[in-house]
Amino acid sequence: MSAYHPLTEQEAIQIAHSLDGFFPEGAVLSSREIGDGNLNLVFHITDSASGKSLIMKQALPYAKVVGESWPLTLDRARIESEKLILESELAPGLVPAVYKFDPDLYLTVMEDLSDHIIMRQGLIGGTRYPKFADDISTFMARTLFFTSDLGMNQQNKKLRVKAFINPELCKITEDLIFDDPYTNSPNNSFDPAIRDAAEKLWKDNELHLEVAILRDKFLTNTQALLHGDLHTGSVFVTPESTKVIDPEFAYYGPIGFDIGAVIANLLLNFAGQEHWTPDADKRSDFRRYLTDTVRDVWNLFDQKFRALWNEHGIDRIATSTPGYQDYYMNRLLQDAIGFAGCKIVRRIVGLSHVVDIDRIPDAAARERAQRLALAIGTSLIRNNRKAHSIEEVIDTALSAASK
Amino acid sequence: MSAYHPLTEQEAIQIAHSLDGFFPEGAVLSSREIGDGNLNLVFHITDSASGKSLIMKQALPYAKVVGESWPLTLDRARIESEKLILESELAPGLVPAVYKFDPDLYLTVMEDLSDHIIMRQGLIGGTRYPKFADDISTFMARTLFFTSDLGMNQQNKKLRVKAFINPELCKITEDLIFDDPYTNSPNNSFDPAIRDAAEKLWKDNELHLEVAILRDKFLTNTQALLHGDLHTGSVFVTPESTKVIDPEFAYYGPIGFDIGAVIANLLLNFAGQEHWTPDADKRSDFRRYLTDTVRDVWNLFDQKFRALWNEHGIDRIATSTPGYQDYYMNRLLQDAIGFAGCKIVRRIVGLSHVVDIDRIPDAAARERAQRLALAIGTSLIRNNRKAHSIEEVIDTALSAASK
Repeated sequence: MSAYHPLTEQEAIQIAHSLDGFFPEGAVLSSREIGDGNLNLVFHITDSASGKSLIMKQALPYAKVVGESWPLTLDRARIESEKLILESELAPGLVPAVYKFDPDLYLTVMEDLSDHIIMRQGLIGGTRYPKFADDISTFMARTLFFTSDLGMNQQNKKLRVKAFINPELCKITEDLIFDDPYTNSPNNSFDPAIRDAAEKLWKDNELHLEVAILRDKFLTNTQALLHGDLHTGSVFVTPESTKVIDPEFAYYGPIGFDIGAVIANLLLNFAGQEHWTPDADKRSDFRRYLTDTVRDVWNLFDQKFRALWNEHGIDRIATSTPGYQDYYMNRLLQDAIGFAGCKIVRRIVGLSHVVDIDRIPDAAARERAQRLALAIGTSLIRNNRKAHSIEEVIDTALSAASK
Repeated sequence: MSAYHPLTEQEAIQIAHSLDGFFPEGAVLSSREIGDGNLNLVFHITDSASGKSLIMKQALPYAKVVGESWPLTLDRARIESEKLILESELAPGLVPAVYKFDPDLYLTVMEDLSDHIIMRQGLIGGTRYPKFADDISTFMARTLFFTSDLGMNQQNKKLRVKAFINPELCKITEDLIFDDPYTNSPNNSFDPAIRDAAEKLWKDNELHLEVAILRDKFLTNTQALLHGDLHTGSVFVTPESTKVIDPEFAYYGPIGFDIGAVIANLLLNFAGQEHWTPDADKRSDFRRYLTDTVRDVWNLFDQKFRALWNEHGIDRIATSTPGYQDYYMNRLLQDAIGFAGCKIVRRIVGLSHVVDIDRIPDAAARERAQRLALAIGTSLIRNNRKAHSIEEVIDTALSAASK
């Protein structure tokens, strides 16, 4: 069974049985395929008698998005598994445990997180996650610092850059985030009601200059090993727990790209509250919670990254030069703001959207949410290189929402 | 003979005989080892009857610098050979032809350039090279553009980043250029007469901030496949011909690092003219020639790189966004200036010096040359992020020399 082929549920169960000591001897296992079938098979294997369960994720050799299908390297499963294992060492408790990786089947066997929900769904339902900012900032500070030239042997880092070269998954980002939304691309998809706003994006040279600079950073800045797709659909939560999943886009890139993804998706939800919290006072409260979370995510990240730098920094010049840390952290903030803007814009006019906004049933509310998201996103892109404080992001969001 | 071992001259001759059709049947070959024995064996193989000759360069598994010896990967021979072959495709005629690479012996067989001399020696002798600026700017524009995300398929570029991961050679640069000169490192080496100037470098926080920023670019900016060691000792010249050699430091880094190396070494020679051209008028003339060359190298590089971008640019946003090219080229200029400064400073107080200055026999003239070089180098580092024109570099050099 070791040559690659997409597994059946029966084969998945067989593999589950073969895991030493995970399920009791003679357990009767059942399997349910719960993936969306676009990129991966995901089997949920359970033993109702013992209550034990696990997840098996197998990469498929193609990607399907909105009906189209194109071939996609299976090597992403190796990347995902290696990145998950590294994350569990650097940020214990904040990712699912990996029980096994089968390199022939491109199969990762990992902890079942069925007691958690996808954060995006939780936020749509109006749930607050008081541990999230603390957890995600720990996750980012530790996984990014200890894979950067500040926190690990700089020669080993180069070998890690090599191990995480990820051309095909990076191309998806390069096209869908840093190109298509700014031209009349056949990949784009948006509500006809906001066609005027989409067309404006295609002609906005000032915006294009900022996007070109951010795109170049994505292409050439091997600052740290990123998660690469850190939106609220890649985070499983309960009010007490945060687990980051799905790092198949991992590669060495600019640190701000991961931070920007978190900020962007909090703000996309902020825009979607146009519908999800109909009561104006409650909406305003929940939006405050979201902007408070944006502030906390950045401020806690900033504190923790600096603390790691001061305690574990390995670069003599970087650790001994007054002013360098401030310069570096401000650049991270600016990058995070620019990337957040790009990630908001693409979810409104690009190929792949978010349910926070797309599932708004009322057309007028949906349009208001889309225009609000675009106003926030473009403003963040336009101002990224001038930014000096996370408060500017919050002011941008609140003032756009008050119009 | 295919398992790795350092070749004897007899073995080198045997290999030369085995090259199909290079030497006439039955030729009587002689070999001379002309390497300096620090990093490589270099055999010069000649057939006096036919007048034909070639060079064999074999990597040694260690490096020797100033008596010390440390192990060094043989993989650098693969990198050097692959880079040379790529350069000969991208910049034909500007590098030695490669006849053969033996991956087991880490041996490159290539064109003999004995009719050329090392440019550094030529400049010390007061020779002018009227084709140099045109040739080296073509070499840089073409090798850098066509290996960057502007000029080649961006997914293939990532695979090339992977093929040219070069940790050990990069570490030499990171230590000797971007660290040691700015602290009291045992690796440093300088004339006792300028100890005051060296100590000043160790305490100059403003300078350290700029060096930290430049070091970070060297560590994390995979802009293009660099030569990585493009000083005037890596260039063979005649007044009619330019050949770039020794790309064993090749890796994906910031474009300005290669340009800065050329500028730095022209300016180190400029400083050394304190001695080599004793007549004040002639010295002033030769220095003008050197600063004119600096100007031409940048201006021609700038023109050629932009022309390639306009004609062969493959990145939609980069090629269609007004202002982006200017932004990008100005950043290259700033980087080149900063890296030039670092490369000057390290040749005065760091481990490895240049004969343009070290071979000045008169102690007072040597000290003047060293202080002049340091004045130019530190000024370039200090001002790199504010620079907008190559004329600022020339003004810096001329005004430091007039003091």
